[in-house]
Amino acid sequence: MKKFMNTAQTMVAESVEGFVRAHEEFVVFGAERKFIRRHHLVPGKVAIISGGGAGHEPMHIGFVGHGMLDAACVGHIFTSPTPDQIVSAIEETDTGAGCLLVVKNYDGDVMNFEMAAEMASGRHRIEMVLACDDIETARAGDGRGRRGVAGTLITERLLGAAAERCVPIAELKAIGDSLSSRIRSMGVALTGVAVPHTQRTTFTLGPDEIEMGVGIHGEPGHSREPFSNVDTIVRRLSETILSDISRSADKGLLLVNGLGGTPPAELYLAYNSALGILSEHGVRIERSLVGTYATSLDMQGLSITLAFLTDEELSLWDSPVATAALRWGC
Amino acid sequence: MKKFMNTAQTMVAESVEGFVRAHEEFVVFGAERKFIRRHHLVPGKVAIISGGGAGHEPMHIGFVGHGMLDAACVGHIFTSPTPDQIVSAIEETDTGAGCLLVVKNYDGDVMNFEMAAEMASGRHRIEMVLACDDIETARAGDGRGRRGVAGTLITERLLGAAAERCVPIAELKAIGDSLSSRIRSMGVALTGVAVPHTQRTTFTLGPDEIEMGVGIHGEPGHSREPFSNVDTIVRRLSETILSDISRSADKGLLLVNGLGGTPPAELYLAYNSALGILSEHGVRIERSLVGTYATSLDMQGLSITLAFLTDEELSLWDSPVATAALRWGC
Repeated sequence: MKKFMNTAQTMVAESVEGFVRAHEEFVVFGAERKFIRRHHLVPGKVAIISGGGAGHEPMHIGFVGHGMLDAACVGHIFTSPTPDQIVSAIEETDTGAGCLLVVKNYDGDVMNFEMAAEMASGRHRIEMVLACDDIETARAGDGRGRRGVAGTLITERLLGAAAERCVPIAELKAIGDSLSSRIRSMGVALTGVAVPHTQRTTFTLGPDEIEMGVGIHGEPGHSREPFSNVDTIVRRLSETILSDISRSADKGLLLVNGLGGTPPAELYLAYNSALGILSEHGVRIERSLVGTYATSLDMQGLSITLAFLTDEELSLWDSPVATAALRWGC
Repeated sequence: MKKFMNTAQTMVAESVEGFVRAHEEFVVFGAERKFIRRHHLVPGKVAIISGGGAGHEPMHIGFVGHGMLDAACVGHIFTSPTPDQIVSAIEETDTGAGCLLVVKNYDGDVMNFEMAAEMASGRHRIEMVLACDDIETARAGDGRGRRGVAGTLITERLLGAAAERCVPIAELKAIGDSLSSRIRSMGVALTGVAVPHTQRTTFTLGPDEIEMGVGIHGEPGHSREPFSNVDTIVRRLSETILSDISRSADKGLLLVNGLGGTPPAELYLAYNSALGILSEHGVRIERSLVGTYATSLDMQGLSITLAFLTDEELSLWDSPVATAALRWGC
């Protein structure tokens, strides 16, 4: 297992320290290095807080800054941050309008964010939005049981932009909940990943195999299939998404996300393929994002995320954002 | 060889088309799709043109836009663009102040850019700047024979920013030439890469081996060494760079660049390590860039680039840039 690290015990702390030092214009460590927060808090604005296990960078620390998150809490590799970390982030970033927690729908994350919300609720107004965009983990219509993956960043961006306009917390919660049926993602892996602490690869693929329906924790996917070509793979991802997503809004946002080991040229190729396939299905893509945003360590693979948004949500998407990983209009 | 592609013959065209469609706000295809150019040309500004083989994305197409390149010509994988492509880019982007060609120092690129310059020289004022930042390919002091790798983007950025201020072409050429001894890069690979056309891996490493001194074309490096840890590797890269770079300016810019298959978390870890090692050597880093900018297909590896700049050059670096891969101040 060759990775650019020193020890499994120190790799998260060293990497996050590197991130903060590289992006001092946007972020600082919070108290006792328990979380990362944006430099300048805005009084009267709802604080948007997210977090999760390490190994998904730039998610979420790369989204801390103007127009997106106020704080991000990082756990160990693929492990939720502790309630104590989350409470510290709430205490330091709530400027009076409350805190909205954006939580990827995994048991450990949900449990720890809920515990933190309970611990802080006497002193802070807290609401929570679950991100559950992954297509493969549940087929039921209500979204329960779906994992939060790359599409989480769309929720974080839209809520962060709305918060910047001083939208009150109840309304932010309603926006977040209304997005959940309109954002769907599906991933595919060309390789498994080795988790540093265990030095074990979570699954192993043959030279002509791919794993369809993977999440972002190296867990096996939905089915193992023969490797074909990008059009076939992207068609499968896109059409599965279309069979499940709510089209109650009609402006498409397409995110092609690299899982850590896939180079930009291949992501653009997959994006080009997805545009064509979605167009066949009458989907018009109004906004696009192509890059490495939500990773599963160094996995070779990608995910496709489609979101159907309203004009108002597109305008939130377009508003200024200044973070390490997303930056425009500032 | 699993890659997100359809055929080796079409992969560059499909990927570049995806890039252009994803970034319509910055770029359009030039005549007959021979090159990519920025949307809005500025009359009286020197046109900055670069290019090279595909397989290095986002270099150079991701650098086309305000404050950087006016056009980029893309060849086949690891193959120079043709003189015809380059002449077309010159003809379409020269608004009267001439064209400066930024060329990575490889025989094929130099030959084709020189041929294009000769073909266009009757109608256009042309100058050329060679990027030759790679440390491992020559030890002579004059820079001849060094390859252009990730550090090329620093030259492109500074010249693009200066051109935006309407600096005349002779002065731009002088700035570019003066940078050459002050930018040095060195790369390391954890894996070789398979070239799509040949389906052959350029070199193969054992599970505990690394290749020191690689470029960005999958060519073998300077020495094969046992895998140790990131501090040891980054120290070797950083100290080799320091032994060779000119310190005639004293403001450090540190670029940690992923070679295609290395996730952001590992790049930040390497960056953190490099900051500490450079600090031991009295180098103060004033600006940083960490990400995947100049790739060698899907190679797992990274390069460290150090540049020593003047205050005036730092101010060029900081000025507004709006491209797909670098964006600030706009």
